[in-house]
Amino acid sequence: MVQPPPARPGDAVEDIDTPALIIDLDAFEHNLSLMASRLPDGVRLRPHAKTHKSAEISLRQMALGAVGVCCQKTSEAQALVDGGVDNVMVSNQVVGAKKLARLAGLTERATISVCVDDASNIDAIADAMANESPNNQINVFVEIDVGNSRCGVAPGEPAAALARKVVAAPRLNFAGLQAYHGSAQHMRTANERRHAIEAAVAAVEKTTGILSADGINCDTIAGAGTGSFENEISSGVYNELQAGSYAFMDADYARNLDESGEPVSTFKHALFVMATVISSTRPGHAVLDAGHKSVAVDSGLPTVWQAESISYTGASDEHGVLAADNDAPTPGVGATVMLVPGHCDPTVNLHDWYVGVRNDVVEVVWPVTARGAVF
Amino acid sequence: MVQPPPARPGDAVEDIDTPALIIDLDAFEHNLSLMASRLPDGVRLRPHAKTHKSAEISLRQMALGAVGVCCQKTSEAQALVDGGVDNVMVSNQVVGAKKLARLAGLTERATISVCVDDASNIDAIADAMANESPNNQINVFVEIDVGNSRCGVAPGEPAAALARKVVAAPRLNFAGLQAYHGSAQHMRTANERRHAIEAAVAAVEKTTGILSADGINCDTIAGAGTGSFENEISSGVYNELQAGSYAFMDADYARNLDESGEPVSTFKHALFVMATVISSTRPGHAVLDAGHKSVAVDSGLPTVWQAESISYTGASDEHGVLAADNDAPTPGVGATVMLVPGHCDPTVNLHDWYVGVRNDVVEVVWPVTARGAVF
Repeated sequence: MVQPPPARPGDAVEDIDTPALIIDLDAFEHNLSLMASRLPDGVRLRPHAKTHKSAEISLRQMALGAVGVCCQKTSEAQALVDGGVDNVMVSNQVVGAKKLARLAGLTERATISVCVDDASNIDAIADAMANESPNNQINVFVEIDVGNSRCGVAPGEPAAALARKVVAAPRLNFAGLQAYHGSAQHMRTANERRHAIEAAVAAVEKTTGILSADGINCDTIAGAGTGSFENEISSGVYNELQAGSYAFMDADYARNLDESGEPVSTFKHALFVMATVISSTRPGHAVLDAGHKSVAVDSGLPTVWQAESISYTGASDEHGVLAADNDAPTPGVGATVMLVPGHCDPTVNLHDWYVGVRNDVVEVVWPVTARGAVF
Repeated sequence: MVQPPPARPGDAVEDIDTPALIIDLDAFEHNLSLMASRLPDGVRLRPHAKTHKSAEISLRQMALGAVGVCCQKTSEAQALVDGGVDNVMVSNQVVGAKKLARLAGLTERATISVCVDDASNIDAIADAMANESPNNQINVFVEIDVGNSRCGVAPGEPAAALARKVVAAPRLNFAGLQAYHGSAQHMRTANERRHAIEAAVAAVEKTTGILSADGINCDTIAGAGTGSFENEISSGVYNELQAGSYAFMDADYARNLDESGEPVSTFKHALFVMATVISSTRPGHAVLDAGHKSVAVDSGLPTVWQAESISYTGASDEHGVLAADNDAPTPGVGATVMLVPGHCDPTVNLHDWYVGVRNDVVEVVWPVTARGAVF
């Protein structure tokens, strides 16, 4: 059920079997170094591994200063810990005795954090930790809804009540607030993103004010993504950033605009799906071997890299249709193209392997360690 | 990189780890038997395994009379042959020497068919077959574009020219025409689907007429899907049906209408994604553990099974948001729901295991044999 790698180190790019998930290593390393260099004193990076699902990439991010990584699922955390990552935060709720037992078991081997937004869930985490060695603790963040309207308890007293409950629970270490604003990441203008994060900061301060009066300290205020992180940095309130997509970028993030109204160009496109034309029976029309099962379309269709007159106009399960503007030529049967996925996270989840390329040669092949880790 | 199964045979439904891909075995067996019973003499069934990607399910379909299965990729064919399926048609173009060598190698172990719509591809297939044992042949279908506007050569003389080339090629057995009308499957009214397949039949006959005059027989006219197959059956022209989704059904197919304008109810929903509520912080709102990485949304969001007042209103990577109509209650933290995927094929591709359930007990756990087989 795991496919063999589509290439081997040393292969030429043109010999990669397709559809394949390609990393442009120069662009990828640029992105990792650039983000590391952007952090002021007192602001830590904990990149989101739900983007890449890779222990190898997590360790590279940590080698550049990241304190650990985030993920969203217990099974992802397990795969990353198994791969040598010793500090993992599940930036999400974990519900169910079996999953919590699995998560609690990881505290024997790594520093583990988790989020809560429900009182009964705090009891369930404490129950799970009661079965672990007495020396093990789990870091617990109270997640507040800062405008994302998904998970998270209301800021202020409802959040403070949960924090007090965590503080009182044995083996649970109250670590601070999870205050991620997901929908802010894809607001197109810099103004919209700034206002969203200003509101998030107000929600955080409403909560920390109450807790501070109770003598409860919030060591970590966690949140931020690739779209908004510069706002969280300048807030003076957030001290741990959870950006993930910056490592790869995708077509959707490339549609965000900066303060001057130009497309944000901080990070480079480093992730591609390499695809082959399998059919071209009329001018201006070609069909690729990459459809829904190779590239996610939930945030728009992929774009064709460095081919402005050619568009990917439709996906079906195993096919992608290319159309040429006006009379531009379409690539013929057997030709390959590089697609920029609309959304990197779910695209990565479709593949078993990364093929890392530099100077048109395959340099590395990495497993997508936590592919399919949805439990 | 393969997750452990989310349940074991004998487990109660409520003990299945989520998100999990569930088969309602009663509904599934009903669907398989019903399709088998619908075939008149002279019309064969070759179900599409791109829906289920499972050797186990392929063998069950063949035990009920199917002559073999279809798939779309060489790596799917290999996984199915490895799983004991001895007759596989790749109802798609296979391009590239490495893939063709792999496909040709399968002719040693199984009856293999493939489609072509390009002359140079015929030469490439012949080259690949030249390296195989002289006793092995490959069945080759000429794919014609019957209105789907994706792959397929134009019907009539262009298709006939390719057929003549196949007939002349050593070790290639000209098997007939691939005449699948993909977009007809999701036309909502019975009238639209009937007209689409009437046009497809005309395209087939335009081609077979030319070939017949040349003394070239088209043994098999292949096509049809779950949305249109009754039209292909009644055409008197198609003699091999490639329906796949009928085994499971999905929310999108449930929107097709029959001759009387009612939703088509021939087959039952047999495939579900079981999900758990992980957050519910305000009335009328709940968040599931199943988003883009557990359920495909390319053909619409999933629906919530047997819960008319609750809707799945939004997906992000790992989350699905439930909203209740008016003041209907939403399920609380820890509760489970069954989702009907909008599109079964790419949803199945996200999971490593099927959990087959009957009378609220897990009866079987089957691997998704060809998950991720996009090569």
